Amino acid sequence: MSKRKYAIGVDFGTESGRAVLVDVNNGKEIATAVYPYQHGVIDQVLPTSKVRLEPDWALQDPEDYIRTFKSTIPAVVKRARVDPADVIGIGIDFTACTMLPVKADGTPLCALPEYRKHPHAWVKLWKHHAAQPEADKINATARQMGEPWLNRYGGKISSEWFFSKTLQILDEAPEIYAAADRLIEAADWVVWQLTGEEKRNSCTAGYKAMWSKREGFPRDEYFAALDPRLARVVDEKMSRQIDSIGARAGALTPQAAKWTGLKPGVAVAIANVDAHVSVPAATVMEPGRMVMIMGTSICHMVLGKAERPVEGMCGVVEDGILPGLYGYEAGQSAVGDIFAWFVDHAVPPAYHAAAKKRKIDLHRWLEREAAKLKPGESGLLALDWWNGNRSVLVDVDLTGMLLGATLATRAPEIYRALIEATAFGTRVIVEAFEQNGVAVNEFVTCGGLPEKNKLLMQIYADVTGRELKVTASTQTPALGSAMFGAVAAGRAAGGYDSIFEATPRMARLKKETFQPIQENQRVYDQLFAEYVTLHDYFGRGANDVMKRLKHAKAQARQ
Amino acid sequence: MSKRKYAIGVDFGTESGRAVLVDVNNGKEIATAVYPYQHGVIDQVLPTSKVRLEPDWALQDPEDYIRTFKSTIPAVVKRARVDPADVIGIGIDFTACTMLPVKADGTPLCALPEYRKHPHAWVKLWKHHAAQPEADKINATARQMGEPWLNRYGGKISSEWFFSKTLQILDEAPEIYAAADRLIEAADWVVWQLTGEEKRNSCTAGYKAMWSKREGFPRDEYFAALDPRLARVVDEKMSRQIDSIGARAGALTPQAAKWTGLKPGVAVAIANVDAHVSVPAATVMEPGRMVMIMGTSICHMVLGKAERPVEGMCGVVEDGILPGLYGYEAGQSAVGDIFAWFVDHAVPPAYHAAAKKRKIDLHRWLEREAAKLKPGESGLLALDWWNGNRSVLVDVDLTGMLLGATLATRAPEIYRALIEATAFGTRVIVEAFEQNGVAVNEFVTCGGLPEKNKLLMQIYADVTGRELKVTASTQTPALGSAMFGAVAAGRAAGGYDSIFEATPRMARLKKETFQPIQENQRVYDQLFAEYVTLHDYFGRGANDVMKRLKHAKAQARQ
Repeated sequence: MSKRKYAIGVDFGTESGRAVLVDVNNGKEIATAVYPYQHGVIDQVLPTSKVRLEPDWALQDPEDYIRTFKSTIPAVVKRARVDPADVIGIGIDFTACTMLPVKADGTPLCALPEYRKHPHAWVKLWKHHAAQPEADKINATARQMGEPWLNRYGGKISSEWFFSKTLQILDEAPEIYAAADRLIEAADWVVWQLTGEEKRNSCTAGYKAMWSKREGFPRDEYFAALDPRLARVVDEKMSRQIDSIGARAGALTPQAAKWTGLKPGVAVAIANVDAHVSVPAATVMEPGRMVMIMGTSICHMVLGKAERPVEGMCGVVEDGILPGLYGYEAGQSAVGDIFAWFVDHAVPPAYHAAAKKRKIDLHRWLEREAAKLKPGESGLLALDWWNGNRSVLVDVDLTGMLLGATLATRAPEIYRALIEATAFGTRVIVEAFEQNGVAVNEFVTCGGLPEKNKLLMQIYADVTGRELKVTASTQTPALGSAMFGAVAAGRAAGGYDSIFEATPRMARLKKETFQPIQENQRVYDQLFAEYVTLHDYFGRGANDVMKRLKHAKAQARQ
Repeated sequence: MSKRKYAIGVDFGTESGRAVLVDVNNGKEIATAVYPYQHGVIDQVLPTSKVRLEPDWALQDPEDYIRTFKSTIPAVVKRARVDPADVIGIGIDFTACTMLPVKADGTPLCALPEYRKHPHAWVKLWKHHAAQPEADKINATARQMGEPWLNRYGGKISSEWFFSKTLQILDEAPEIYAAADRLIEAADWVVWQLTGEEKRNSCTAGYKAMWSKREGFPRDEYFAALDPRLARVVDEKMSRQIDSIGARAGALTPQAAKWTGLKPGVAVAIANVDAHVSVPAATVMEPGRMVMIMGTSICHMVLGKAERPVEGMCGVVEDGILPGLYGYEAGQSAVGDIFAWFVDHAVPPAYHAAAKKRKIDLHRWLEREAAKLKPGESGLLALDWWNGNRSVLVDVDLTGMLLGATLATRAPEIYRALIEATAFGTRVIVEAFEQNGVAVNEFVTCGGLPEKNKLLMQIYADVTGRELKVTASTQTPALGSAMFGAVAAGRAAGGYDSIFEATPRMARLKKETFQPIQENQRVYDQLFAEYVTLHDYFGRGANDVMKRLKHAKAQARQ
């Protein structure tokens, strides 16, 4: 096997799909191709028909996923100038929970003329937020019935998750629910399209559909309590057969080989989720090293050897990230989004002009100015809840707060305070894990922010008192998917027999790291104590003013 | 006395002095002239010499006040085309406490070559803020000695006031203190320059120098405890003879007649303070009607028939506003200043461009957009402490807060929330008065804001549940001074025998008023309850985070 072998990772994002062709031997990313979805995020009207959608809806067209395969895989093979026969494996990762109703043969209902005009027949994207009443019912019923699985999700199921979306279909479109032979994660559906076999992955099942390796799905009585028609949803529309992350899903069908220009029979990995697949691509395969995917939001992932309850985490799933380990996930619902909001909506013209004059992005200019300040010097403190709080409070009704403003307060000070607030939010999450026996000794970061904002990285190091490392790849999820593709192929085919074998060979970090500066830590320890006091005051019921204001806002808009 | 008679009011502001010539019979403002002080606010270097000032200093040149007389009075007489012999009285009002050291003949020390380079020889303007250590000592000593007068000032003396400034001179420049035969309010000094007689008014004595009609100044033992050299300050450098507002100070000297072009012997009124003199000019001469001077800050004044302690008021002074009544004063340290801060430092370019396109001020554009929102619709709540809190908390270390921000929050929503916060601040003051038996049944407003911002006026009406009226004059202090000038002249000379006689004849309101809208009141009652909870939480010691952040800021800047 002296000849070089390659694996392809396909990362299905919110607006586009991206393929990366990777050298299996060393993880080198040889070629990349991106396909912007023809129909993007469908949140106004359905394509072709002009059916209007309600607020908070977000759909996709499954045909865009097939088009991604057809467009990007031939492109990377061509750009890399490799022999398609040397591509030994494919892995994919997807946003989640992104799910759709399909017929028994995998045909999406929205592809059938009779259902095409029905919004519920389409793919519900992760950020489809119209199933909140259903999520509320799922939570209330679970609490009432004392369902034990609720603890694995920090005590709360999200409106974004699988059964919230399922129940919305049943509530609002029972005919679609009835017509659907299968309800399936898009991640699993695209793998099915590649291999011809329906296989379901442990990551989305665990994090989004309340499944666990030891206990399976919630019992039928629970589903019946939600709605008698839902009693047998798992057996009727899903599957109790869940395959672990790291397993092989099957082989490329002749049809999929035609789409992609690869050889039939290429190994295809069990589907993954974009955040979770980044963990091994960030070199992490053991407890103690938290992966942070830092972009518009932050996703925190860490591995453990046992299942422990941690307040407000998104989920703990055995085999959820790596086989044989418990994968813990937590998150902050807005990070980069807050800075973008600030730059777009609260920075006066002089700073825009200054950045323009220097031909740099306004974020860079503010970062540069904010970097001149010492910790504490702004006199400001913020609560980073511009988009609610995902962990540890799990409360979408919390809102952002800025305190300490004076007539002398200027934009770079606020910019810095917002960065600091998100760092405090991460520290709250880290402390919740550590207090429950899940170690967090260092961070390995990926995503857009670590590349862009060194001040932010230093502040996170100073606030958390931990070293921050950065992945070498800028397309970590696609690299992770390619790694799982190489594992699906196996050592005999030139790949690896396990992800633990593949990781040291294929994943790399940058040399540059961010170390906490003791002097800054001391100040931030004080500010963090202030943050926690306000976090608990506004977030734990002492003063629910944020919720009441949200309620008043909703009433005023009626 | 069929021939028309006139009075002139001179209003000494922070940057300029303004004279208004008024028809005594009907209060009609015939002519106005403004003199921008040659040396303005001196806060960097002394004029002529290049002596640099410390931070927080703010001085003025007394010669600028004389130049104001010389420039503006001849100008209004000329513009009005009246016979100088028909000008029967002059009144003046001043910022306060604005004070200076002078020789026994009234010569300012800074006018003498030997002291000209000494900062402490100049006029200390009201906003000279370098005497905080002295104010702290004044307060601590008074509390320690159980001084009863402290209650008349909401429990706290300001660094801006007379004895804070006096003690700073003594501390830092004992030679200036020794050289000063008199320490005097600029208000009284300019009257002295007009009449040749040193007379001191009950308004500044009461509000700024801890004097009361019944108890006089604090006892000598108290001053001795501050500093033994200060023991006899009142007898040595001031006067125990205090004249009531509404009294006649004297007659125009031949020299002052020459400056002004008026006849010698014209009646001159006892000096007044800009805010307080506005009360009769706003038609108010009885309890129950609160005057609000609304500009960069708000000054609240209301009359009462008895002295009652009110938390956090600036002061209660018998004869302080009108003779025979108790004048209550409270204030908000930043109002228009907060909106100006927001417009200058937190509004993105798109709004600037939109205002420019429509050729309107950005404040107007934001007001127009904010007016489209219903109460509660922004989901935001602010604490209006961008410049500390004057009443009722009397705490300069409190800071601004904004709560309820989301990724969808836009500038007009914040603008409205800031207006609402200042209205809540006013309501706290009103309730403090009412809870202590000082009635506030309606508001009569003057200053820049009522002219400029109708949305703000409506919000104040809705938040407080009270009608807002607006003075007809746009130069209320100068009109008030002219009214007191007419009273100093007396009925025999064509004026009035008392301010109560002059007010109904000379002061007028606009027809347009602002009535509370019940539906809005209901929502604002809820939001006000939230405001009060946060006001007390952050302002009354439950969580002193604002003070600790200010401390951390000061430390970081060391």
